[in-house]
Amino acid sequence: MRRHRLALLAVVPFFATPDLAQSQTPPSGVLEVPAKTIPVPGDVSPQLAKIIGAPLRSNWDIHPKTGEEWKPVADAGAATLSKLVPGMMERLKVKVEKTTIDGVRAFILTPETIAPENRNRQLIHMHGGCYVLNSGEASLPEALFMAGFGHIKVVSVEYRMPPEAYFPAALDDGVTVYKALLKSMPPKNLAFFGTSAGGALVLEMGLKVKELGLPMPGAIAAGTPMSDVTKVGDTFKTNAMLDNVLVSPDGFCDDGAIVYANGHDMKDPLLSPVYGDMHGFPPTILTSGTRDLLLSNTVRVHRKLRQAGVEAALQVYEGMAHAHYIRDDTAPESKEVFEEIAGFFDKHLDK
Amino acid sequence: MRRHRLALLAVVPFFATPDLAQSQTPPSGVLEVPAKTIPVPGDVSPQLAKIIGAPLRSNWDIHPKTGEEWKPVADAGAATLSKLVPGMMERLKVKVEKTTIDGVRAFILTPETIAPENRNRQLIHMHGGCYVLNSGEASLPEALFMAGFGHIKVVSVEYRMPPEAYFPAALDDGVTVYKALLKSMPPKNLAFFGTSAGGALVLEMGLKVKELGLPMPGAIAAGTPMSDVTKVGDTFKTNAMLDNVLVSPDGFCDDGAIVYANGHDMKDPLLSPVYGDMHGFPPTILTSGTRDLLLSNTVRVHRKLRQAGVEAALQVYEGMAHAHYIRDDTAPESKEVFEEIAGFFDKHLDK
Repeated sequence: MRRHRLALLAVVPFFATPDLAQSQTPPSGVLEVPAKTIPVPGDVSPQLAKIIGAPLRSNWDIHPKTGEEWKPVADAGAATLSKLVPGMMERLKVKVEKTTIDGVRAFILTPETIAPENRNRQLIHMHGGCYVLNSGEASLPEALFMAGFGHIKVVSVEYRMPPEAYFPAALDDGVTVYKALLKSMPPKNLAFFGTSAGGALVLEMGLKVKELGLPMPGAIAAGTPMSDVTKVGDTFKTNAMLDNVLVSPDGFCDDGAIVYANGHDMKDPLLSPVYGDMHGFPPTILTSGTRDLLLSNTVRVHRKLRQAGVEAALQVYEGMAHAHYIRDDTAPESKEVFEEIAGFFDKHLDK
Repeated sequence: MRRHRLALLAVVPFFATPDLAQSQTPPSGVLEVPAKTIPVPGDVSPQLAKIIGAPLRSNWDIHPKTGEEWKPVADAGAATLSKLVPGMMERLKVKVEKTTIDGVRAFILTPETIAPENRNRQLIHMHGGCYVLNSGEASLPEALFMAGFGHIKVVSVEYRMPPEAYFPAALDDGVTVYKALLKSMPPKNLAFFGTSAGGALVLEMGLKVKELGLPMPGAIAAGTPMSDVTKVGDTFKTNAMLDNVLVSPDGFCDDGAIVYANGHDMKDPLLSPVYGDMHGFPPTILTSGTRDLLLSNTVRVHRKLRQAGVEAALQVYEGMAHAHYIRDDTAPESKEVFEEIAGFFDKHLDK
């Protein structure tokens, strides 16, 4: 019986697909993947295991249709999230000061210890939240992680969001802050960073800065960027119902982008930067995880950058779903993510 | 009604997990993922779309238990696969010559054009096939891709496999060839590369070379390495039944490793190199895809290398399952993979 079974295999060797080469009718290509029970992976810290093991985000399938409908959702979320900020500030030893830069709201984050090599450097942070969430102090966690783990000064842009303003308001606010900082600092002493919508925004800022003929910053760090809001990307499907943050391409997040876009073409590189021309970009580092709904749209940007001749690094973390690395500042993986980004900045920024 | 639904969301903001912070009983962490219908991703070449869209590998769940049981499977597969080799040699313009190096069977691959910077460089190739498959000419496709796209000379090691020999025979054969080449070339003009079991073997060779006190090669390229044969790795679960090559952690491939190990501890770093100490490794580039069953075991090696202070690059390709990049030499993604590796080698090898 075994002998017979093995003999059957003979026509389908490993790495060869003679059926493909000879087939007259191409395969449909659609794969039916059965239901699965997925445990938390073994090789992560207890803190990350807790984040990965959390149930799917409640109400992931809400679909607010206007800026006004998003407002109460955003306000409630921001109220809860901002309560975590004082503890993070204390543990990460970072001071925060509210300010306005050329009319744009921003926070200045100063770590207790600024590394000697970072004394003349500053980072511009664009927060995440689907272009509609995380106003006020709720925008700060990632900026705190970067300032604290990287020992570097950060300017976090509290950009306008619906219903206050629509595309390209968030992008304009980021560029305004960059222009303002350029008055007192060389571009190569500055870098942009952000995650999710913030990851897309820092790429959009790169495209816009190029369009405006301004000098590029010294580096960019885009974490799991919403680089394609046209629903293209393999992991939108393969990691659906597995990423416990974004959950599904039919979830809440892309609806935020639609509201922000306000009727604008979603394939415009200033909304879906993966379609932009990235020639001339500064060195860029990208971060994602194996369960990230936006893993494809992270690696697609990585390839686009490499194809454009840009020095680009990719880090993908075991088991992480979307933006899991900015949840818990006590998780060793979070420290590692930001130290890796800080090292990348150190390698590429001027002093 | 909408107002009421949005109000419910108030307690679960984006990026905040107050339920986790306050919960007395930790979540089980097990996720029930429903069945899915997964189409071929849009943003890949027609050649790659065909490879991704192929049905699951036939007989992926066979479990030969001995070297003798693997032999007819391996022979049949090799016979079919080796038929593709002459076409590849012609298209890629690479000549192949069979030889023996200090008693180890090998092939010397010489491309029609050797790039000027590669004149004094050679690469050592360790082929894939779960430590039991792809003997003879069937070992050559990846070596041909590298020689042809990279315009560089390759020595492909036709290492011993069960039932001819067991652990550590394959590793020993690789190290023997490296030692032989060191007699006529400086180590920094040499690099190791391989995919799957070959990806593991080049990492194991790095560990062994260090243990022997030999000089490290100038660089290593490990494609989707079988870096952990103890079943640890998140994408063993998340990409199961989605990776159409390896299909499942309960599939055929790890059984090949078990037969090769021949009773040896599977967690030995010379079988599961992710558990090895990678300090002192040369610059290393890793390649995987979003559907790869071994994506986790690629990114875990990447993190281990980075933690050991090694310069390590990661490339992850949209939609690719395990080793899809060594299937079709006419797929632009295959060319891109090997040109990226060639560029990495060029950056790090001496001339």
